[in-house]
Amino acid sequence: MRDLAGRLDLCAINTATLGYQAPIGETVDAIARAGFGAICPWRREIDADDAGRAAARIRDAGLAVSGYCRSTYFPGATEADRRAAIEDNKRALDQAATLGAPCFVLVVGGLAPGSRDLEDARAQVEAGVAALTEHARALGVTLALEPMHPMYAADRGCLNTLEQALDLAERLEPAPGAAPEIGVAIDVYHVWWDPDLDAQIARAGAARRIMALHVCDWLVPTRDLLTDRGMMGDGVVDIRAIRASIEASGYAGAVEVEIFSAENWWKRPIEETLAVCAERLQSVC
Amino acid sequence: MRDLAGRLDLCAINTATLGYQAPIGETVDAIARAGFGAICPWRREIDADDAGRAAARIRDAGLAVSGYCRSTYFPGATEADRRAAIEDNKRALDQAATLGAPCFVLVVGGLAPGSRDLEDARAQVEAGVAALTEHARALGVTLALEPMHPMYAADRGCLNTLEQALDLAERLEPAPGAAPEIGVAIDVYHVWWDPDLDAQIARAGAARRIMALHVCDWLVPTRDLLTDRGMMGDGVVDIRAIRASIEASGYAGAVEVEIFSAENWWKRPIEETLAVCAERLQSVC
Repeated sequence: MRDLAGRLDLCAINTATLGYQAPIGETVDAIARAGFGAICPWRREIDADDAGRAAARIRDAGLAVSGYCRSTYFPGATEADRRAAIEDNKRALDQAATLGAPCFVLVVGGLAPGSRDLEDARAQVEAGVAALTEHARALGVTLALEPMHPMYAADRGCLNTLEQALDLAERLEPAPGAAPEIGVAIDVYHVWWDPDLDAQIARAGAARRIMALHVCDWLVPTRDLLTDRGMMGDGVVDIRAIRASIEASGYAGAVEVEIFSAENWWKRPIEETLAVCAERLQSVC
Repeated sequence: MRDLAGRLDLCAINTATLGYQAPIGETVDAIARAGFGAICPWRREIDADDAGRAAARIRDAGLAVSGYCRSTYFPGATEADRRAAIEDNKRALDQAATLGAPCFVLVVGGLAPGSRDLEDARAQVEAGVAALTEHARALGVTLALEPMHPMYAADRGCLNTLEQALDLAERLEPAPGAAPEIGVAIDVYHVWWDPDLDAQIARAGAARRIMALHVCDWLVPTRDLLTDRGMMGDGVVDIRAIRASIEASGYAGAVEVEIFSAENWWKRPIEETLAVCAERLQSVC
């Protein structure tokens, strides 16, 4: 297991952590100044600027890109809706390639509007991901399925365990190469509860599918299902144990902080949040 | 699959649905007047009265008892804490027997205070359940493990899938008889998201371990992790499909309504909530 002390170059900041308070250029510079090695931007930031200009700014700041967040939800009430989501995701893949992102993070969406059919939603997700593979392969961007905590099954993501994500990846790409077409993004927040986690991490690592490791913490109590995630160390997740398991499986990518925190971290100055992230990555993770 | 139309005798009310607005005697009579066949009381109600007197009141009202809620959490910071929880649960088992409850519902608890060790919490749960089996067997009360939604792993229940609960049940009781010592209580709210649900229901049914079926609904959005559960039909769970799966596995017990709803149903008059439960059980479930 890598020692992160003095190694912020191994660490990334997912820009969602900072609450989108500044344009992407300023955010890039702040993250670089704080000493981090990589950034994972969100589409809203790139759409508000230009992917080529953002890529240059990131490069000039000396940062790598750890990933690009995130897909438009696949399930739709109509075939036209589903087709539009796929086309939208292809445009996002183009941006990911321009940014030099190794992976595009797939938050796949929950039930189709008006539907109670979770099995159908999952089938729509699989069809949607399959429809992206050729485009992604041509660009050299891995599709990183992010299993979502089961509390998001209805409205955010109906892939709810690492096992389920890996099953889907294997169906679409049974024998991945060194750079898989379909990988996974593992966020400790979504998976920490899973009794099968270590076994599935080992499986994912053996197939070289782990494209990202996101860290934050589970707060007790949690006051909002989406935006009350905690700074590492403020909650109950044994982050170090999960990172050990992931790195033991062969993962050597960034340790990326992603914290949705509307009432706390998103209200603080970017520099303060970055400083606390840096400290906690080295002391807690 | 049973048709519930005109068959409220097949249905039960878990008293948590009514927000504990009345003493147990009045609650019993209201549930009976509304036409339901069974009741699942909570300990706070029985502790505030007397188990023998409550049992008589339930019998006189013509109700069956579908279960008794719920265990004191097993994980503890010290051996003394864990021992106290076991003793407390033995007293609750005595009450369950007095009430004539076929099962005592085990909400097992999450992490021990101050701990981040989920594996240890799960080991403490297993030890705690094992310590109850002899007492429960002597009383003829089944211990019904209730898998909790993963969002409760930290603070309410670290058994988070039906598979995990069944694995534990099989370790403690490999070959259950017609009335198992260790069973499961399946609440659609906790398990509806699980991609492996149907397979695990079949497994549970084949072993005759399903002791209870709880229904409510998952609201979108969900505004509170614990007390924003929905009335059947107001959310996105395909309750009928889950009930069909459970009954196809051999379950012939009560369909029990349990709704934690601090801002909605708990504020309404008991009679109104019971009337809506009756209507939705017959039209939605």
